[in-house]
Amino acid sequence: MQLTINRELLLKAINLIAKAADKRHNMVILGNIRLEVSQELLVLTASDLEVELMATLKLPAGACIEPGSTTLPAIKLKDICKLLPAQSVIQLAAQDNGRCLLTSGKSRFTLGTLPAKDYPTLGNPEHITPLTLSRHKLSDLMHKTLFAMAIQDVRYYLTGMLFEVGQRQLTTVATDGHRLALARAAVNVGDEVNMQAILPRKAVIELERLSTELAKMLSEQDNMLTLSFGREFLQVSMPFGDVDSTGQISDSLVITFTARLIDGKFPDYRRVIPNSSDKLALVNREKMTEVLRRVSILSNEKSRSVVFNFAADGNVEIRANNAEQDEAVENLQVKYNGDPIELSFNAAYLQDVLDVVQGDVQLHMSQANASVLVNQLGDELHQYVIMPMRI
Amino acid sequence: MQLTINRELLLKAINLIAKAADKRHNMVILGNIRLEVSQELLVLTASDLEVELMATLKLPAGACIEPGSTTLPAIKLKDICKLLPAQSVIQLAAQDNGRCLLTSGKSRFTLGTLPAKDYPTLGNPEHITPLTLSRHKLSDLMHKTLFAMAIQDVRYYLTGMLFEVGQRQLTTVATDGHRLALARAAVNVGDEVNMQAILPRKAVIELERLSTELAKMLSEQDNMLTLSFGREFLQVSMPFGDVDSTGQISDSLVITFTARLIDGKFPDYRRVIPNSSDKLALVNREKMTEVLRRVSILSNEKSRSVVFNFAADGNVEIRANNAEQDEAVENLQVKYNGDPIELSFNAAYLQDVLDVVQGDVQLHMSQANASVLVNQLGDELHQYVIMPMRI
Repeated sequence: MQLTINRELLLKAINLIAKAADKRHNMVILGNIRLEVSQELLVLTASDLEVELMATLKLPAGACIEPGSTTLPAIKLKDICKLLPAQSVIQLAAQDNGRCLLTSGKSRFTLGTLPAKDYPTLGNPEHITPLTLSRHKLSDLMHKTLFAMAIQDVRYYLTGMLFEVGQRQLTTVATDGHRLALARAAVNVGDEVNMQAILPRKAVIELERLSTELAKMLSEQDNMLTLSFGREFLQVSMPFGDVDSTGQISDSLVITFTARLIDGKFPDYRRVIPNSSDKLALVNREKMTEVLRRVSILSNEKSRSVVFNFAADGNVEIRANNAEQDEAVENLQVKYNGDPIELSFNAAYLQDVLDVVQGDVQLHMSQANASVLVNQLGDELHQYVIMPMRI
Repeated sequence: MQLTINRELLLKAINLIAKAADKRHNMVILGNIRLEVSQELLVLTASDLEVELMATLKLPAGACIEPGSTTLPAIKLKDICKLLPAQSVIQLAAQDNGRCLLTSGKSRFTLGTLPAKDYPTLGNPEHITPLTLSRHKLSDLMHKTLFAMAIQDVRYYLTGMLFEVGQRQLTTVATDGHRLALARAAVNVGDEVNMQAILPRKAVIELERLSTELAKMLSEQDNMLTLSFGREFLQVSMPFGDVDSTGQISDSLVITFTARLIDGKFPDYRRVIPNSSDKLALVNREKMTEVLRRVSILSNEKSRSVVFNFAADGNVEIRANNAEQDEAVENLQVKYNGDPIELSFNAAYLQDVLDVVQGDVQLHMSQANASVLVNQLGDELHQYVIMPMRI
């Protein structure tokens, strides 16, 4: 394997995929990136066998000196490319002794390799259900719900995000058992398609990161992406080439994201969303955020519990106290329809929702011990449910 | 104790001193800030009995409603003031039940207190040796040497910075036994004054922080500071009031820094500084930094050892390898007078020096196993010594 390549090109591809490599994995080779050089293409792969990211880069004429493949330590390769001067030309050459030589200007790095043939592949989706939506919508569906995923839980299906298709809509749902976040968007898919898939936490975070990187390149421009759901895998390909004057992005660099789905049954989220509520509060997001942050200072360090007391006249008293018996009390005027009610939340759960909405927020309540439905005024596509704590 | 005060005034004073409070100290009260209110003054104190920071704030007429004193939890008080709206007016009122009520607008916080009379004081310097220098010089003396202090060492005197006065000069020295940093400045002090004091690490960092905060307020303007060295303590007072149109800073807010000195004998740094060297290299700081950062990627994770091979023609080969037998080699052209020499450093020690100098840097060498003296070209006031490693 021998290759001559512009630093910027190689670094861009490595930066997009390197996070998927896992230096602490039991399989040492997964701390490496696989490089496959042919006359036309350089293919870079990083994986932890849950998420695999593959960068396919069209090579300029003359870049490939000798086709071949190897694997190189991901972090070292990335750091070297990052710290070489801008616009450097990088030569990569596999050696007979199982090492790889990276040279550029007066710099010379000899890196240990592991054989490309030992690098495990994740596999490809079969029996694909493809669905097409804009990058912007995909970002929105993930960004506004991912905070509600469980971080660790024996109910492993909660440590991921449900992707549900039905009635030409894609719905994402995340819940850790204490709160739930749901987002919906119309997508291009057959009328008859109904499916559910659970994408694991790390895959959600990587896919959202790639989507954000793409947004940075495209600025205002949007583009369409195809999610290919198989029985075991989700695969998404994203163009990351140069952007031309019309805002079109070329496929000279393509990132292919593949993730293993969680094999489990997601809880029926429809049963969690409260469908009757006789008390409606309309709250300004900024004002509530300010009050909540202050009151939280004196909330219990573990439960983060904050008590909300809605009076019939729209005055809300918001109160917290902690083990040291410090107490914070604030008053906020809101629009309120309903009988007085007192209920208690984890302040962080409400704050997480306030962080992803804008303008005014509706709280739909019924009883002190019943779940509260939260949504942005006029927005039915995003719904949030928070379980109250016992006071 | 009862007080009405503008949020900005109180927050500024708290921000300047709160870092000295220590929530994890065995004496619980040291997690608190002491507040002492008189008709004219509010005095805030935070301390861990090694460093004490005291803010003395002149009160506007009517601010003091009832003189008195108490102590309040430092972090909670700071967070509340920080999160109250800009330009709020804050009322503080001690309650009969040993609590203190903080109110502002519709916000109401009840905080647990501990009695001001139980708050320990650090003490004041006696038999003072005062010396006066500009804030700018003091910052320079500390900033350019503090990186060489030991972080933890049974030789506790190495976990601080030596302040030495003699011949109307102040010299600061820091060393962890592997490298040494020294800075000198002329100061206003009597001809006959000779003294040594060791300021502990935390005190150095706090004094440098305060000095940097002062620089931010004054921008271009400099001002004179007096260091009062006693047998056990160093005390420095800094004005932090408003800056008028002529750049003069008022004493409406004064921060008094007091630190307990380390009771020990600092090693004779003069014996550490090499006084003969027959090999002189002149190195560009930016170029050496670039090379060093790249080579370090493949250096041994523990020793961070990098080998420098100076050839008579001024070519330096810089080389590192690690336990995985990866190897980095770079070549750099420098101005060099002397026979060829090969020696090895911890890359981080040289990088720390390069981070605080500018332009071209001189390396004075003699033998592979002898210390190297490093200084900025044309600057005799700052000297750095690095011990080589055995190759």
